[in-house]
Amino acid sequence: MQAWLDGQPCEALGLKSRGLAYGDGVFETVAVRGGQAVLLERHLARVALGCKRLAIVVDLAVLRDEVVRYAAALGEGVLKLIVTRGDSARGYAPDPQASARRILQGGPSPAYPPTHREQGVQLYPCTTRLAEQPLLAGLKHLNRLEQVLARAEWTDPSFAEGLMLDLSGRLVEGVYSNLFLVIDGALHTPSVQRCGVAGVMRAELLEQAAGLGLQVIVDDLWPADLARADEVFVCNSVYGVWPVQAFTSLRWSPGPLTRKLQGIAHALLDA
Amino acid sequence: MQAWLDGQPCEALGLKSRGLAYGDGVFETVAVRGGQAVLLERHLARVALGCKRLAIVVDLAVLRDEVVRYAAALGEGVLKLIVTRGDSARGYAPDPQASARRILQGGPSPAYPPTHREQGVQLYPCTTRLAEQPLLAGLKHLNRLEQVLARAEWTDPSFAEGLMLDLSGRLVEGVYSNLFLVIDGALHTPSVQRCGVAGVMRAELLEQAAGLGLQVIVDDLWPADLARADEVFVCNSVYGVWPVQAFTSLRWSPGPLTRKLQGIAHALLDA
Repeated sequence: MQAWLDGQPCEALGLKSRGLAYGDGVFETVAVRGGQAVLLERHLARVALGCKRLAIVVDLAVLRDEVVRYAAALGEGVLKLIVTRGDSARGYAPDPQASARRILQGGPSPAYPPTHREQGVQLYPCTTRLAEQPLLAGLKHLNRLEQVLARAEWTDPSFAEGLMLDLSGRLVEGVYSNLFLVIDGALHTPSVQRCGVAGVMRAELLEQAAGLGLQVIVDDLWPADLARADEVFVCNSVYGVWPVQAFTSLRWSPGPLTRKLQGIAHALLDA
Repeated sequence: MQAWLDGQPCEALGLKSRGLAYGDGVFETVAVRGGQAVLLERHLARVALGCKRLAIVVDLAVLRDEVVRYAAALGEGVLKLIVTRGDSARGYAPDPQASARRILQGGPSPAYPPTHREQGVQLYPCTTRLAEQPLLAGLKHLNRLEQVLARAEWTDPSFAEGLMLDLSGRLVEGVYSNLFLVIDGALHTPSVQRCGVAGVMRAELLEQAAGLGLQVIVDDLWPADLARADEVFVCNSVYGVWPVQAFTSLRWSPGPLTRKLQGIAHALLDA
C-alpha cells in the first residue's frame, strides 16, 4: 500500500531528515487484522515513551487517527510506523523549530512456515552482542545496526531467529523478538533496562500471565538458565508466539505455558 | 547546493531506505576548500572500513569521482556524504540484491566564533555516556542517538562542545570532535576500540605528530588525567583544532603543542 507522510500519500523523504542522518526517531511494527491495528494502545504508548525519552514532540492524537485510518485502508498485513524528529540544519543539535514527521508504510503479513508456530523454531547463536545503554534501553528507536549485524550472521533458513546476549553475557532477546523461559512453573523474561526492546507482545503477555495468576519474573537471565528451562519461547507483535525447540545443543518441546500464552497471542492476531 | 543521489541531482530518498529504517550506513563530513575535498583519501578510507565492517558493497572509485566533482561544484563549504545499504523489504536481513546508495549534500562552512580557535573553548560535561560496542567502535555510522542526546544537554552557547565518557567512565571524545591531552610532553588521545569515532583529523594529527618525533599515545584515559594535562584540545575535520580552556573547574591555556597541531590542521583547512 502507498505510504503516508504526515497523513498524505508519499513515497519519499527529504534528504535532510534526522531519521536518515542520525536514526533520530522511533518505529513500530503493527499487525493489522480486519482493518484494525492490533495492540494499538500499547504501540502508541511505546511511541510516546520513546518520544519522551528522546524529547521528540509528536501529536499522539493525530498519530492515532492516522494509524486507525491507514489500518482501515490496509485491511490485513503489517503497518510500519516511523516517527522522526524531523529535518534540521547540519549538526546534532535539534532545531527547536523542527516538527516531527510521521511515516506510515503498509505491506502484507510475512509468510512464515506454519511449523514455526506449531512445532517451534531453532535459534541461531548470534555472536553480535548488544551494547548496554540505559538511556536507550527498552525503546524501539531507529539505531538498529546491532540487529542488522546479528541478522546478517546466518542465512540458513532452518534458523527462524537468533538469540542475542549483551556485552556482559546476559540473555537479552531475539533479533526481532523477545525471549521467555519457563523455569519451575514461573515465567521469566530478561530485563530490558540496559539494552533490548520492551516489546509490545512481551508487555501484553506479561500482563495477561500475571492476570492468570502465573508467577512472572523480569530479571537478569544467563545462558545457563536456558539449560534449566522447561520451556522456551519467543514472541513479537507480528507473529505472536513461537515455541523454541532448539538452541545449540539444547532441545525443548512446546510446553503447556507456551501453548497457553500462544493462545492469548493468537487470539489477538487471528481475529 | 542541490544534493546528489547516486550522482544525480535529488532532494529525497525513498521511504524504504535502510538508512532511515535502521541507520544502516555510514557518513562523512568533509571540508571543501577551493573546490577540493580536504583529507579526501582519509575520508574514503574510513568509508571503506565502515562498509567493510557492515558488509555494505560500495564502488569506491565511483564514490571518489562523485565526491571530487561535487566538491568542485561546491567550491567552499562542507560536503556531507552518506552511504546506505540501500533499500530492502521489511526486516533486518539485508537483501543481497540491494545496491548501496550514495548521497552527497553540500552547504556553507559553519560560522564558529574566531575566539574558539584563538583562545579556546569550554566543554560541557555531558551526562550521556557512550555504550561500549566494539563491533561499531571507530566507525562513523548512522546510529547517532547518543550524540543527539548528548548535544541536547546544553543550549548555553558558552559551551562550544561537550565531553563524553563511556559507560565505564573513561574519557572518549567530544560530541562532534576527538579529544587530545598533552601530559609531560606526550600527546595522548583515547582509544576508540570500544566506542567513539576514529576521526579523520585525529588520524592526520596522530600521523603528523609522530612524523615530527612527538611521543604519541593512544590508550585509555580517565577524567583524572585531565587534571594532570598541561594542554587539552579537540579537533575535527571541519573546524580543525580548538584549544580547550575550561572543563568543570579545570582551566588551561593554549600551549605550544596545541598551537603546533593547530597549525597543521589549519594549513589544510585555510588553503
